[in-house]
Amino acid sequence: MANVKNSLKLLFDRPKEPLFMPKGPNNAVFQPPANFLAPEYQKRATELGNRHNTDGNETIPLKSVRAPNLTEALKLPRQAEFSLFIPNHRKMASSLIDIFMKVPQNQLQDLLSTCAFCRDKVNPQLFNYALSVSLMHRQDTRDVDIPNVMETFPSKFSDSQVFQDAREVSSVIPSTIQRPPIVIPKDFSASDMELEHRVAYFREDIGINLHHWHWHLVYPFTSATRAIVDKNRRGELFYYMHQQIVARFNCERLSNMLPRVRRFNNFTEPVAEGYFPKLDSLTAGRAWGARQAGMFWQDLNRSIDGIRITIDDVNQWRSRIEEAINLGTYVAANGQRLPLTIDILGNIMEASDLTPNRTYYGDFHNAGHLFTAYMHDPDHKYLEMFGVMGDSGTAMRDPFFYRWHALIDYIFQKFKSSAASPPYNRPQLTNPNITVASVRVNSTGIRAPNELQTFWMQSDVDFSRGLDFSERGTVLVRFTHLNHLPFTYTIVVNNSGAAKRGTVRIFMAPKNDERGLPWQLGDHRLMFIEMDRFVTPLRSGANTITRSSTDSSVTIPFERSFRDLSVRPQDQNNDAAATFNFCGCGWPQHMLVPKGTPQGAAYQVFAMVSNIDLDTIQQTGSAGQCNDASSFCGLKDQLYPDRRDMGYPFDRPPNAQFNAIEDFLQPNMALQDITIRFTDRTVQNPKNPRP
Amino acid sequence: MANVKNSLKLLFDRPKEPLFMPKGPNNAVFQPPANFLAPEYQKRATELGNRHNTDGNETIPLKSVRAPNLTEALKLPRQAEFSLFIPNHRKMASSLIDIFMKVPQNQLQDLLSTCAFCRDKVNPQLFNYALSVSLMHRQDTRDVDIPNVMETFPSKFSDSQVFQDAREVSSVIPSTIQRPPIVIPKDFSASDMELEHRVAYFREDIGINLHHWHWHLVYPFTSATRAIVDKNRRGELFYYMHQQIVARFNCERLSNMLPRVRRFNNFTEPVAEGYFPKLDSLTAGRAWGARQAGMFWQDLNRSIDGIRITIDDVNQWRSRIEEAINLGTYVAANGQRLPLTIDILGNIMEASDLTPNRTYYGDFHNAGHLFTAYMHDPDHKYLEMFGVMGDSGTAMRDPFFYRWHALIDYIFQKFKSSAASPPYNRPQLTNPNITVASVRVNSTGIRAPNELQTFWMQSDVDFSRGLDFSERGTVLVRFTHLNHLPFTYTIVVNNSGAAKRGTVRIFMAPKNDERGLPWQLGDHRLMFIEMDRFVTPLRSGANTITRSSTDSSVTIPFERSFRDLSVRPQDQNNDAAATFNFCGCGWPQHMLVPKGTPQGAAYQVFAMVSNIDLDTIQQTGSAGQCNDASSFCGLKDQLYPDRRDMGYPFDRPPNAQFNAIEDFLQPNMALQDITIRFTDRTVQNPKNPRP
Repeated sequence: MANVKNSLKLLFDRPKEPLFMPKGPNNAVFQPPANFLAPEYQKRATELGNRHNTDGNETIPLKSVRAPNLTEALKLPRQAEFSLFIPNHRKMASSLIDIFMKVPQNQLQDLLSTCAFCRDKVNPQLFNYALSVSLMHRQDTRDVDIPNVMETFPSKFSDSQVFQDAREVSSVIPSTIQRPPIVIPKDFSASDMELEHRVAYFREDIGINLHHWHWHLVYPFTSATRAIVDKNRRGELFYYMHQQIVARFNCERLSNMLPRVRRFNNFTEPVAEGYFPKLDSLTAGRAWGARQAGMFWQDLNRSIDGIRITIDDVNQWRSRIEEAINLGTYVAANGQRLPLTIDILGNIMEASDLTPNRTYYGDFHNAGHLFTAYMHDPDHKYLEMFGVMGDSGTAMRDPFFYRWHALIDYIFQKFKSSAASPPYNRPQLTNPNITVASVRVNSTGIRAPNELQTFWMQSDVDFSRGLDFSERGTVLVRFTHLNHLPFTYTIVVNNSGAAKRGTVRIFMAPKNDERGLPWQLGDHRLMFIEMDRFVTPLRSGANTITRSSTDSSVTIPFERSFRDLSVRPQDQNNDAAATFNFCGCGWPQHMLVPKGTPQGAAYQVFAMVSNIDLDTIQQTGSAGQCNDASSFCGLKDQLYPDRRDMGYPFDRPPNAQFNAIEDFLQPNMALQDITIRFTDRTVQNPKNPRP
Repeated sequence: MANVKNSLKLLFDRPKEPLFMPKGPNNAVFQPPANFLAPEYQKRATELGNRHNTDGNETIPLKSVRAPNLTEALKLPRQAEFSLFIPNHRKMASSLIDIFMKVPQNQLQDLLSTCAFCRDKVNPQLFNYALSVSLMHRQDTRDVDIPNVMETFPSKFSDSQVFQDAREVSSVIPSTIQRPPIVIPKDFSASDMELEHRVAYFREDIGINLHHWHWHLVYPFTSATRAIVDKNRRGELFYYMHQQIVARFNCERLSNMLPRVRRFNNFTEPVAEGYFPKLDSLTAGRAWGARQAGMFWQDLNRSIDGIRITIDDVNQWRSRIEEAINLGTYVAANGQRLPLTIDILGNIMEASDLTPNRTYYGDFHNAGHLFTAYMHDPDHKYLEMFGVMGDSGTAMRDPFFYRWHALIDYIFQKFKSSAASPPYNRPQLTNPNITVASVRVNSTGIRAPNELQTFWMQSDVDFSRGLDFSERGTVLVRFTHLNHLPFTYTIVVNNSGAAKRGTVRIFMAPKNDERGLPWQLGDHRLMFIEMDRFVTPLRSGANTITRSSTDSSVTIPFERSFRDLSVRPQDQNNDAAATFNFCGCGWPQHMLVPKGTPQGAAYQVFAMVSNIDLDTIQQTGSAGQCNDASSFCGLKDQLYPDRRDMGYPFDRPPNAQFNAIEDFLQPNMALQDITIRFTDRTVQNPKNPRP
């Protein structure tokens, strides 16, 4: 059985290379019946299969299966980019997932053979997505380790020049000699003459883009199986995760002398931000569309993608959504007016299958992605594929992503400022008997407290799994990313009552606004980025809580975003990786701390210990693995592990009498000035393979 | 010796693959000293060399050479596109050409070794260009057959998707099995929803783009050796060749219900024509920039390319050029006013090194290419390379090329309408004793006279020579191009005098304008496309002259544009290909006849026999080979073989009393109505390799 699961994994390998070519680190060879192959190879199946079947390699038998109905799935050409933002692509994916899900449970050989039958016929991105979702949601394959999408489709995550170099390196240098890593230049997509490029290290960070891709994999817009979409507090999480992204982006902007991002408010205004992603699609053999500065949204009419939306539609949806916020009620599909909640608002805005009235409220957030992704070819006149905003794995590269989500968040904040969401009162903020005396941070290797330090790190990833039609063997790509010294929080808490538990909530924000002036709390609260949230026991009396930055509930470790390259693939622990699919969701640890400035950016750490009675949730599912990034991703098969509104206590505008964060403080909260210093040095990731 | 020349040719092969990898059809292996290699491979030279040196292959010894000064040439990164439109690139090319030219004559082993020393260090496009020019102009290597640029850099000429497919085919199917050809779809760059796409078959024709690339190779803008630039009537040929391109493009437009191309007259107007070339640069690992509809020219400030030009500059140059036309004199570099001729005007407009006063008249034509090529990134903010208008091998793909050259031609026609170029008088047009009684055309396989027939043809070219880092062996790419049935002209001429010779000049034009109305001669003359020009003996009395369309002085045969694939490379006749470099210049035979329409487009063939006494030129050089495309390309090392103004008799506006072409006819001219019928069928090129 384990063997078949391993074979299922191999179906992801080198997605465009035919089934009969060797797969995986040990060059295992599938034994497909001729009708499993792509039509152009069927006639020559034996001849070609023999050529690639090196003697002694492991062979993987496949059994004949009744041909599934691929009519829908075959509508997407092999050489197309696939995106869930595109309605027609969603239908194709559903139909293929349905085929894989309907293979009877525990008939793994049937499953393997059915998947193998489809593999070389359908679009490789569509195939890999449908296979991922199916393996995740079938009871009998939940523990199959799905490879990181960056490994199978590296061209979504990396400068196109890398692939020329990779081809050179793998062709010139045999795999028996260690090949030198290919270095992606840090500034490949623009120069600093483009002001927005100053924050490209954030937008184009591979870990951040992988997080976003994973988030949308875990929370798909649509599925034939409603439970896959209908996860606990999904709508609210959509709002909160993106609110935090905008807040984090704004922190980076202030670190780089840029004002907070300006929301895209008027849909007929030109888009000032040009973006040239310099990505190629290895699937399509085409470049991702670029956007010159000063282009406009245009009405979309692309029948090939099933997209017909006008700017007027989006304006109507927006005013209906804002009407619902102002009235406190939304119009359900049956015409009834029902109370609006943040969760429902999230579902309406996104919009997923959970939206209660798509006819009336439309598809606001997705439409913004599509308008931007297609502004260069709104009617498919030029046969162009979508730009980076059209794919969840690439969207965060585009400066416009943040302008769009700034608007989305602005609308969510209208709800948060409405009567449905009044300012927190004292009992909601305080914690009986609990006082937080102090909070401080200490970075490893720095004597002075309350200083965080950031720097550049170069890390290697292996792209060979996605380098179709190249020679075998590891091809390392070295990219530069922000990182910081690990640090600990020390929080001193006094408990004047009996022992109990409390929820520690740690946030951080820049101390001053872009003019260098202290914040008004109404703006300041939107700048607080969540750093950690955890439950801690509090004995009676003084408690000193220490917590490591690497334990953050926001992040996943570097090795989870990528893979530990110091371990050879064949030695990797399958159990640890077992729930990678879900566990790949999480903010990358290396981007936990904003960049700060060389002279030291003034930040404040905010820590509170909230009242556990108002925090605790009664879990219904059983505890799963990798629950370490729950803040942005929730928990696998469980309820969101916090009863409070997401973002508490900063999600709501404060009581009008509080002007500054200091006014807002309660005894169970503490604030500490800290400095984030960027040191402009580049260190090698100690886990990079030794030369 | 012949062997060294053969080795020189191999330096073009797979331009990005290092020197130590096998080259050419027989996998010959260079034996470079370690310091010949690119820095990254020098340390591992032996190890890597041995890996690729398959036993028994021919080895090519190289001798140690003193390292030439590559400071200038190394300024262009390996992974950059190279273009002669870019001033800094021209300097780099000059410096490298200089190195190759200075190797003493007949020291071919020194030459080979010097070139080999540079090959893996400098940019491969720069290297191949400098090597081509040097081999063409060194006495000792003039007969080296330089490979077609489409073979070495196929990505400039073909849809990017082809290269993904090519990699698949060469990786999956061994070279011992005949690989199926990869088909480039006819409509890959846009759909017919874009009206301009109707003439994409012309703009994107590979033969036409090869012609344009070759023309600029034969007539470079600049060179350290003035003779290379200063070819006979070069300025006039620049005007005439491009005038004919615009006329031919307009014929295609009328065939497709499009009006004649509108010149780009106001440089601050938006460019309505979007263009998405869908080309990748295999050298740069980047896509060629696309242009959305409605973009503007912007002032250029790209220090990296040595380009600083403003729209204001171009406006000033234009008004000074038009002033020179209106005054009949231009300002020489010393401030003197000298008479303007069409040749000088061509040199001023282009502008090549021959321009008499660059400070005053600037670089008008080239600037238009650059403004268009960089409108997406005028200040290098986005680190983008030039768009297709920036390269002579790709410029003709862009609809804007024709709008720009329509303006260029409009300015040239102002000169042609000036006092310097009065209408031809009777003696200039007539031919004593000669009457042309009739002209007719007969297509092979069609019974009715005076019908030409066009259709689609699919032809195969081998891309393997430019597919760096792929498996060896032929990779055929099948593209669709226009073609026509071969035909003959039959011209009946009466000579009432003694036997003499005459120059037959054959032109063709649509009979009606875009509204379906008969032309005014002033417009009509600009639509006449040259079909042939040849000298014929005329005996006393009746003469029946027959001439085959394949003998046209405008065209080169299909096999010259591409290469005859029915002959294996190792069997190709080196003598025949010896002067390929020059001979590659010429309009492709398959594009001689405009497409016409399914119902039959009304055209007129015009034939005249002009007075040889006014035609003949006294050649000074010795007759060379391949003088069969002299109309657009001149003759190698000889004078332009016609004393008349190029385009005669249609280059000047007619006498005011002539309203229609019929009024213009003299006894030595004849006009014949013909039909060009497009039959929408696709035939295979009979020379395609048999499956």
